[in-house]
Amino acid sequence: MSEVSLHRPFPASAVEQWDLETDVAVIGFGAAGACAAIEAADSGAQVMLFERNSGSGGASGLSGGEIYIGGGGGTDAQREAGFEDSTEDFIAYLKAAGGPCIDEAKCDLYGHQALAHYDWLKAQGVPYRGNYLPGKHIEPTDDSTLIWSGSEAAAPFCDVAKPAPRGHTIQHMGWGGGRPLVDVLEASARSKGVEVVLDSRALALIEDSGRICGVVVRIDNQTRFVRARKGVVLATGGFVFNETMRSRYCPDTFKLNDPIGDKDDGIGIQLGMGAGGQAIHMEQFFTTCPWTMPESHAYGVFVNIHGQRFINEDCYHGRVSRCAVDQPGSKVYLLLDNAHFTQPPDFARIAIAATGDTWDEVEAELAMPSGTLAATMALYNAHAHEGRDPLFDKRAPILVALDQGPFVALELDFQASYFSFFTLGGLHTSTAGEVLGGDDVPIPGLFAAGRCTSGLPAWGHGYSSGMSLADCTFFGRQAGRSAARG
Amino acid sequence: MSEVSLHRPFPASAVEQWDLETDVAVIGFGAAGACAAIEAADSGAQVMLFERNSGSGGASGLSGGEIYIGGGGGTDAQREAGFEDSTEDFIAYLKAAGGPCIDEAKCDLYGHQALAHYDWLKAQGVPYRGNYLPGKHIEPTDDSTLIWSGSEAAAPFCDVAKPAPRGHTIQHMGWGGGRPLVDVLEASARSKGVEVVLDSRALALIEDSGRICGVVVRIDNQTRFVRARKGVVLATGGFVFNETMRSRYCPDTFKLNDPIGDKDDGIGIQLGMGAGGQAIHMEQFFTTCPWTMPESHAYGVFVNIHGQRFINEDCYHGRVSRCAVDQPGSKVYLLLDNAHFTQPPDFARIAIAATGDTWDEVEAELAMPSGTLAATMALYNAHAHEGRDPLFDKRAPILVALDQGPFVALELDFQASYFSFFTLGGLHTSTAGEVLGGDDVPIPGLFAAGRCTSGLPAWGHGYSSGMSLADCTFFGRQAGRSAARG
Repeated sequence: MSEVSLHRPFPASAVEQWDLETDVAVIGFGAAGACAAIEAADSGAQVMLFERNSGSGGASGLSGGEIYIGGGGGTDAQREAGFEDSTEDFIAYLKAAGGPCIDEAKCDLYGHQALAHYDWLKAQGVPYRGNYLPGKHIEPTDDSTLIWSGSEAAAPFCDVAKPAPRGHTIQHMGWGGGRPLVDVLEASARSKGVEVVLDSRALALIEDSGRICGVVVRIDNQTRFVRARKGVVLATGGFVFNETMRSRYCPDTFKLNDPIGDKDDGIGIQLGMGAGGQAIHMEQFFTTCPWTMPESHAYGVFVNIHGQRFINEDCYHGRVSRCAVDQPGSKVYLLLDNAHFTQPPDFARIAIAATGDTWDEVEAELAMPSGTLAATMALYNAHAHEGRDPLFDKRAPILVALDQGPFVALELDFQASYFSFFTLGGLHTSTAGEVLGGDDVPIPGLFAAGRCTSGLPAWGHGYSSGMSLADCTFFGRQAGRSAARG
Repeated sequence: MSEVSLHRPFPASAVEQWDLETDVAVIGFGAAGACAAIEAADSGAQVMLFERNSGSGGASGLSGGEIYIGGGGGTDAQREAGFEDSTEDFIAYLKAAGGPCIDEAKCDLYGHQALAHYDWLKAQGVPYRGNYLPGKHIEPTDDSTLIWSGSEAAAPFCDVAKPAPRGHTIQHMGWGGGRPLVDVLEASARSKGVEVVLDSRALALIEDSGRICGVVVRIDNQTRFVRARKGVVLATGGFVFNETMRSRYCPDTFKLNDPIGDKDDGIGIQLGMGAGGQAIHMEQFFTTCPWTMPESHAYGVFVNIHGQRFINEDCYHGRVSRCAVDQPGSKVYLLLDNAHFTQPPDFARIAIAATGDTWDEVEAELAMPSGTLAATMALYNAHAHEGRDPLFDKRAPILVALDQGPFVALELDFQASYFSFFTLGGLHTSTAGEVLGGDDVPIPGLFAAGRCTSGLPAWGHGYSSGMSLADCTFFGRQAGRSAARG
């Protein structure tokens, strides 16, 4: 009797009866799974989608619904707002954002096809108002489309690629565009005949002579054997809720307390590895603390517990937050003058650690040695008055002197403050969404997309809002199309 | 016809003829493989050891031959030099050195058995002079035994565990004790009847109904099928010479240019993953630049390209080097006064970047903004005169003011200087040396030790000299004993 295990495919020869049959089985109903299902159906395949919750969503449903899109001279929203965005600049930014973990082929493919992908999203029914919302926003506060959602205008990225805003958000009033985005994708999938099976949890892949040919699923407390004639698409998300995997692959996340996701327990990564797939860049994670709320706080200066600066604060809030977590100790400070300070929102759990009429007073109240924080701010201010930041290359308009007290030091404590985080590492896939074995040859019948793979958002320090959804939706489609081909 | 592949076990049913038969097959003849072979033979097993080079050695043979040993009140060398070393302190240090990647069970087991392991090494014929060599040494310059080989006396380690020197080096004049160490282990293995097959390269594992039962080896240009009735031990080293694996698992090593090892191409990790093993902490690596040569340079102060300090310089040279590689840009500077400066050895490729009668002059010559490096040194010196370092907790005797010029800034360039490095991530194994599958259940018949596993030296920032050889020799023995049990 063969054992049903996440960690080793179940032999088809041991299947006594196929309870369900389809061409393509998709596991997971976030944006990646939805797009895979739509594309597989559009390719003529019969598609069944298995989701362990009682509805669609996944981490995508909890997101802001922003998708990172650009290139080709710009989207309608970019061009209308006066931003030309060449494919070369777009790709150069994507690659810089991938840092040492970059998958160049994925950047190249998405870079060339992002505009067509934007049209495809609209064709599924995703509404976009088409306008540009200036400023620094984590998500649009109204129903606007285009925002700056990365580090495009900040060093070193602005020297690599001409900056343009590229975060495109579904038309939806306020935060939380991810839920309506998935709703639209779900409606499209259902309209194309995708059979959605909710409350169904994948237990194992099924293999026949080296080919993945199905999946064992738990439905209504019964173990069901699903034959997938053409392929299985894993779209089950990352592993932020699997503490064992985090301790082995991404232990730095234990500095933080606020995982975000929807039961992301790494099941797809485990299924893929068990079938011979490679899990890569598993130590990478995204994190952010909402320190740019209110927006005036973006004018602040960050120092670590030694009073040292560590970043140009005009970068994306997530890049700043990720670099903060690299600093010694368990917290960093955001320094502000009275002109820029407003009480942070409660949910950020950012406390006031010190105040003072001079930076010396703030330094003393933080119990830092004399000549640390105050010296840092004296140097920063002297340069800011000259319009430059020779240390970290922060630039106008965010570069302003903070030398008119009173001053405040806000404390971003990695454990106490709201540092949301999710994992970025996962299965190594081709641009076609095939899961690659140790020899880099596709595992027949096995495909994957979204955060159970390593994709466009490969490097925590380079993450920009919308990159994960761009990756999920675009490479979800590739995986679905490939699976339909079988 | 089944394919012979690193990435998937070859089915025993497809083996036409067993060319060789043994109880235990060990792959790789460094210290881990040698100790596995010795222990398996001592357990009564027939042992064949396959090594792809024309002789023993591996990365162990290129090492200093130091083994990290302590606890139990101290070794003979520790006690004679006046260092009591409790098992509790020893284990506490091992765990602190493992940082977020720690395997507590391995630390606990080795912590309790290290003294017995030292006796075992002596019983194999490893000579120890038994004396203590004070000072800061990368390896003993004579034939001494005991040196400080980690960060034991430095913060934060000294607050976690009572410091003691624990690097135990084979009696051998000068550097390079690893070669004679492996020679002794080789002689012991051969004396116990281990059959050594040189110039033989492992191509694949062989599996029978989920059990590893042999290995396919290339010998004299012929593919040979080796039956291993009880088990196979992988002891093939890390993956520092496999650029594809480095790019997927450990891309930060591309900042550096000097991999050390002996054909360490990750083959054992690939074989193990292909059999269902998990490769963990793959992003971790050791690096060091020999900046403590001459020893007087240990009194220097490190700053990054922004003139900021980043470490207490009384830490182990490798911890300082590893933290250096985390700094922005591609180099760091070691600041010295004339009293402590001597020309570095040529092989270190450490250049003089600037000199000056004051730190202001050094700062200007480095083209750093005024008030960066000079302010850092003014603060450091003021505190050093008070006998304290409130920022990084560097302590006496290494803590001295550097305020009598002339001064010098040495440049440690990550690419140009000699930053040797090797990888630390690998297969997840039990304390018994069993390779664990995705479900943490041992894969029958498959064992591993040394740098194809993640072990005692799990975290690059906590590495101490002798930890890898301690891990290789001790857990090599565990793997060999377990394999002999089958």
